[in-house]
Amino acid sequence: MLPKRLSILGVGLLGGSLGLACKAIAKDCFVVGYAHNAETRSRALAAGAVDMATGDLQDAVTDADMVVLCTPVGLFGTMLEGLGKWGKAKAIVTDVGSTKRSVVLSATLQIGQKMRFVGSHPMAGSEKRGVEFARGDLFQNAVCILTPTADTDADALRQTESLWQTVGMRTTVMSPEDHDELVGRVSHVPHAVAAALVDLQSEGSLKLAGKGFLDTTRIAAGDAGLWRDILLDNADHVRGGIEQLQQQLGELSEMLQAGDSAGLKAWLEAAARVREGMGRR
Amino acid sequence: MLPKRLSILGVGLLGGSLGLACKAIAKDCFVVGYAHNAETRSRALAAGAVDMATGDLQDAVTDADMVVLCTPVGLFGTMLEGLGKWGKAKAIVTDVGSTKRSVVLSATLQIGQKMRFVGSHPMAGSEKRGVEFARGDLFQNAVCILTPTADTDADALRQTESLWQTVGMRTTVMSPEDHDELVGRVSHVPHAVAAALVDLQSEGSLKLAGKGFLDTTRIAAGDAGLWRDILLDNADHVRGGIEQLQQQLGELSEMLQAGDSAGLKAWLEAAARVREGMGRR
Repeated sequence: MLPKRLSILGVGLLGGSLGLACKAIAKDCFVVGYAHNAETRSRALAAGAVDMATGDLQDAVTDADMVVLCTPVGLFGTMLEGLGKWGKAKAIVTDVGSTKRSVVLSATLQIGQKMRFVGSHPMAGSEKRGVEFARGDLFQNAVCILTPTADTDADALRQTESLWQTVGMRTTVMSPEDHDELVGRVSHVPHAVAAALVDLQSEGSLKLAGKGFLDTTRIAAGDAGLWRDILLDNADHVRGGIEQLQQQLGELSEMLQAGDSAGLKAWLEAAARVREGMGRR
Repeated sequence: MLPKRLSILGVGLLGGSLGLACKAIAKDCFVVGYAHNAETRSRALAAGAVDMATGDLQDAVTDADMVVLCTPVGLFGTMLEGLGKWGKAKAIVTDVGSTKRSVVLSATLQIGQKMRFVGSHPMAGSEKRGVEFARGDLFQNAVCILTPTADTDADALRQTESLWQTVGMRTTVMSPEDHDELVGRVSHVPHAVAAALVDLQSEGSLKLAGKGFLDTTRIAAGDAGLWRDILLDNADHVRGGIEQLQQQLGELSEMLQAGDSAGLKAWLEAAARVREGMGRR
């Protein structure tokens, strides 16, 4: 079940892919795309990701039954302001932000009286950016986390879950707090570490980089502005994860100094078993 | 230019792939494969990776013009002992070990008077193991580091370089010391960090793992025994790299605590620029 009129604010990789996926499934779902940049609007139209593209936020949100915030999180404030002025009463609003505590709080404060907000985090995407990389199957089999609070409208939650399931995602529901703790651990800390591993290299070592290094650091090529916002917004959990990792690396270093062959093997085996269990992907 | 009789000691992923590559290029290069395990010998023969497979080390090395040590580094001692007894005088011996200082030193001490040893580190392979994953094109376009010392025979170095180039590798030459420092930085430390990132996860966070986490930790699925040997053998450089990484993560944590948006963005941008420069691979 898709809304009659869906408004996607920000048609980059995620917004564009959402438009493509919805258009592929339901021809009668009218998709409006908002983009500040005229070239982005042309590309989104040419790709068939949207039925209508506009750089006017009022045009983009008026009459929309459901609105998805797909801009960088730093622009959510402006989008929510526009929704506060021009959004349809009781329409559903969701987002694709990578952190949830602050987003859910701001949205609830800014539009919570008028519209029905539900926090979403579709865990799809890549280090690539822009509507030119958008794909209708981007969301297939990936996980989408929904983060309702006590204030969240149950029907809006159900419809938002339905949107992500319709485009192929496996949905899971948790609090914004749990989201930020768990995603900080499995996504934000690894990003910071990948960047640190790149930073650790010298000119000589980079020449010797093999497939292992390229895999391990692939995410470090991601957009710096976007990741700065994510890491700052989730600073407490990221710092906690970094501290734990530093401790583990300290223990590893001690095993190496002591020549603790058995301890080292057990430690590597535990990690290999878990990672192997996740498949060769 | 390949040797007339090539002996591959250990026909796993690397040894098997080397056999396949040599057989594809030069039908007249007779490839002997040594494996302790009878099933491995059958598989290597069936795959066409070797012309003859034996579990007798004497049979494997007698008359060989060139010998490549492809077993785990922990078995090199036994292999070198056999070469000391049964190897042909002046024949070339090389290896595929991931650390070089200790290997080059042991080989020089054990067989340096009789045979001509050249340290090699072909940087190919993956988290997969065994001759069943062997591929003739495994070495294509990957880097092979050769680590001669003042004692290394110049002709043996040239012929060893030629072997790796013939199977498609880009060769580079440096001292065993430089090798261990640079490879420790770009390969061994990232492996340890990937394992630590897996270890950092909880049951809940693992359920949310996306492509980024899978990429970043892929190498952690590698063989624990093999990696234990590598990390222990290169402990000083691995510990040095870990310490530097801990410091960088500490600085990152301070930027997060201070809300240093500009500093954080510059740090992420520097890493993204370097990684982006290595291509989308």
